[in-house]
Amino acid sequence: MKAIYPGSFDPVTNGHLDIIERTAAVFDELIVAVAVNREKTPMFTVEERAEMLREACAHLPNVRVDYFHGMLVDYVVREGAAVVVRSLRAVSDFEYEFQMALMNKRLNDRVETVFLTTSAEHLFLSSSLVKEVAELGASLAGLAPPCVEEKIRQKLMESGQEAEQI
Amino acid sequence: MKAIYPGSFDPVTNGHLDIIERTAAVFDELIVAVAVNREKTPMFTVEERAEMLREACAHLPNVRVDYFHGMLVDYVVREGAAVVVRSLRAVSDFEYEFQMALMNKRLNDRVETVFLTTSAEHLFLSSSLVKEVAELGASLAGLAPPCVEEKIRQKLMESGQEAEQI
Amino acid sequence: MKAIYPGSFDPVTNGHLDIIERTAAVFDELIVAVAVNREKTPMFTVEERAEMLREACAHLPNVRVDYFHGMLVDYVVREGAAVVVRSLRAVSDFEYEFQMALMNKRLNDRVETVFLTTSAEHLFLSSSLVKEVAELGASLAGLAPPCVEEKIRQKLMESGQEAEQI
Amino acid sequence: MKAIYPGSFDPVTNGHLDIIERTAAVFDELIVAVAVNREKTPMFTVEERAEMLREACAHLPNVRVDYFHGMLVDYVVREGAAVVVRSLRAVSDFEYEFQMALMNKRLNDRVETVFLTTSAEHLFLSSSLVKEVAELGASLAGLAPPCVEEKIRQKLMESGQEAEQI
Amino acid sequence: MKAIYPGSFDPVTNGHLDIIERTAAVFDELIVAVAVNREKTPMFTVEERAEMLREACAHLPNVRVDYFHGMLVDYVVREGAAVVVRSLRAVSDFEYEFQMALMNKRLNDRVETVFLTTSAEHLFLSSSLVKEVAELGASLAGLAPPCVEEKIRQKLMESGQEAEQI
Amino acid sequence: MKAIYPGSFDPVTNGHLDIIERTAAVFDELIVAVAVNREKTPMFTVEERAEMLREACAHLPNVRVDYFHGMLVDYVVREGAAVVVRSLRAVSDFEYEFQMALMNKRLNDRVETVFLTTSAEHLFLSSSLVKEVAELGASLAGLAPPCVEEKIRQKLMESGQEAEQI
Repeated sequence: MKAIYPGSFDPVTNGHLDIIERTAAVFDELIVAVAVNREKTPMFTVEERAEMLREACAHLPNVRVDYFHGMLVDYVVREGAAVVVRSLRAVSDFEYEFQMALMNKRLNDRVETVFLTTSAEHLFLSSSLVKEVAELGASLAGLAPPCVEEKIRQKLMESGQEAEQI
Repeated sequence: MKAIYPGSFDPVTNGHLDIIERTAAVFDELIVAVAVNREKTPMFTVEERAEMLREACAHLPNVRVDYFHGMLVDYVVREGAAVVVRSLRAVSDFEYEFQMALMNKRLNDRVETVFLTTSAEHLFLSSSLVKEVAELGASLAGLAPPCVEEKIRQKLMESGQEAEQI
Repeated sequence: MKAIYPGSFDPVTNGHLDIIERTAAVFDELIVAVAVNREKTPMFTVEERAEMLREACAHLPNVRVDYFHGMLVDYVVREGAAVVVRSLRAVSDFEYEFQMALMNKRLNDRVETVFLTTSAEHLFLSSSLVKEVAELGASLAGLAPPCVEEKIRQKLMESGQEAEQI
Repeated sequence: MKAIYPGSFDPVTNGHLDIIERTAAVFDELIVAVAVNREKTPMFTVEERAEMLREACAHLPNVRVDYFHGMLVDYVVREGAAVVVRSLRAVSDFEYEFQMALMNKRLNDRVETVFLTTSAEHLFLSSSLVKEVAELGASLAGLAPPCVEEKIRQKLMESGQEAEQI
Repeated sequence: MKAIYPGSFDPVTNGHLDIIERTAAVFDELIVAVAVNREKTPMFTVEERAEMLREACAHLPNVRVDYFHGMLVDYVVREGAAVVVRSLRAVSDFEYEFQMALMNKRLNDRVETVFLTTSAEHLFLSSSLVKEVAELGASLAGLAPPCVEEKIRQKLMESGQEAEQI
Repeated sequence: MKAIYPGSFDPVTNGHLDIIERTAAVFDELIVAVAVNREKTPMFTVEERAEMLREACAHLPNVRVDYFHGMLVDYVVREGAAVVVRSLRAVSDFEYEFQMALMNKRLNDRVETVFLTTSAEHLFLSSSLVKEVAELGASLAGLAPPCVEEKIRQKLMESGQEAEQI
């Protein structure tokens, strides 16, 4: 069974990576699919986000990184997959994800959404928190793959963005 | 008893319409009231939103469509009503609506807010999802009244807006 | 429009009374209906619960107290009503009530459930908390109608029940 | 990949059956596993519950019905499976299930829990609601497989249990 | 400032111990107070629960273990304290605790309740889960202090209680 | 023990003031710390926000008003404090605050976050609601300290901002 894990991944965090590793153990093939335009003002381009994902997933032979635009259910069908993977971190995630899963089922009822729960140590993690911590100048060790830390520092230097608080 | 169902209705969905029909069966008169400026960058003008509502509610003799600006509780009193109707879809709706109902009660304690729960088949529906689905080029059948589908297509053509993904 | 407010009312609290007063202002007639057998080991019999309600609602001319057994939707129809009133205090209430409303709608789709939110000062109140406070020997002033305090004291003396802690 | 869907199934509902059918489409093999002793005073014996499941799943070639006692994670390993399937209906489910998934991961980190969301039309369904509706004498059509309705009627006649209200 | 951390502690878990250590660092004195009769059929007597707590807290010089019956707010005042400490693990905890804090404030408005959040690694822990895991024969290492594991084994042998599943 | 209550306070409300008074009774010293840049387009400058806080807290001898930028945990350490105080109003607050508390603990594990719950009468209050009510021309009596009402009126006159609805 081929599964697709869609998301913004702006940038990939250790929380995403944990979900990817656990999902890759459950399904035969996994496509990690960067959604184009999902976030209106991303820090990284789609290509940069996919590149960081590829580096972070290099050790997982049945994982492929891709990107898509348009409707998720159409992309899933085009790829010959039938399962969408999403992670749940908190009650607010749950409600939004529940609505999206019902909506996607209505748009195409052969596409099933399955959920994994975030590991306890990643409960507080999100791409925005990773960006905030980096902007504040603190270390990302344990929060994001090493390549992400470096790429965020470059971005921040380019944009001359100053530190903000949490 | 006269009741008022306020909202942005940008645009009306089948979920709204279901609430309107069920509320019209409970109260003698129902005013569906489009809130002016509620959403900062609406897709439709207040007049367009009211027009679609009027078309969708034409079969309900005790329903009138109106719009208002300023404070909701003042509008309710001006109209000689005493009941505000709101729908609940999810826990997050519940918390926001609870705070608004407490606030409105504080501003005028003769105005009562009553809630109806969304029907199971409309749980995932919202005006923004309807707009997203239309922008992605999928059919709105079952999601919004027929007149809405047509009006969104016109808007999208005018603005030349391109498809985005869900 | 005739509405029905069902519940265990074991015993009635000031939170129930607040909902009864506000509902009586919204609907032409209100039946407060004590559910038989709803709670497996109630403190008060159905007749005692109805009696306390009658005393507490004596000032409300359009409110009648009754009791019922069997299915709520059947009782609603037998009484010629079409609206069930329930109160919402918290997120956990909301989920249970949402499921009951969907279930009742499925059993009879002409019966509508409307919700009122608890007033801020009654958020923490429930029949069990009232019983606990009485068992601990503290005053019920502000928590339950005066007749309730007296009846609980009698019950506790009869049963020789000892104080427990909150 | 072999998956296990554990539960009390006292009795199986159309909500369970929907999850079973959707899961059987995602995994190569699915074991529906009745948990022994999970509910302290079940209506049906483990064997009766398994029998109703077998009848309801007869059309699904890759589904097998079994029962187990002791720790779920041990059973999963004994069966050579690595995936536990659970369904999510509401926020309160989510919190309990989240804690169980974290606990099971701690007891054996090779066992993964994946969640499917209940279909909108089964949101209000549970085994206890099915029993309540049957006890009240209403039809179970659409709520549970036909064999369940018959078996509950027999049980209720045997126990001479009287109708209670919802 | 003297604080009181009340609870059933039937038995103390590593989650409780973590809250005790963190609270002891914030307040001058901390009384861990076992509530008498809180749980109707506890596994351990109040004295046994207090004894395990004393052993687990021996390294904390400003922590004292006690027990109380009757109203918590009365006990707090008798001890010359003004702060009650409670931990929050999940949304459902939050709602119950919120209601208790509002109730206690109403019973005595000089008693303040402060909350600490459970550490991520203890999110799934509770006294009942510890008992379940012990009954299933699995190790309690990392879940409860060593003295608890031994005491539960004794209890289970005495009662000849058989293993149940999670 | 010295505690810090950080926030945007744009502007301070009676809900904040209630938390400040209750926290000042629990800890030896309290610093109310206005976060710089927290809100992207605040109505008031940091200095204006601190000024209103100082006026509102003048009666509390152990409270000092300050502001900070950069990481909260660094500011806490610089000030020789070890406790961060936050208030909880609703389930959605809880989830966000839980994640921030876990994150801050990870950044510096000697900084503890404690929570107080909002008083029932302030459940619906927030800085944005205060601004909305003022913009609609209604009185802020009971919602915010008197000095805030005056300062908002001045701001609104300067900006010539027109009334919007709730």
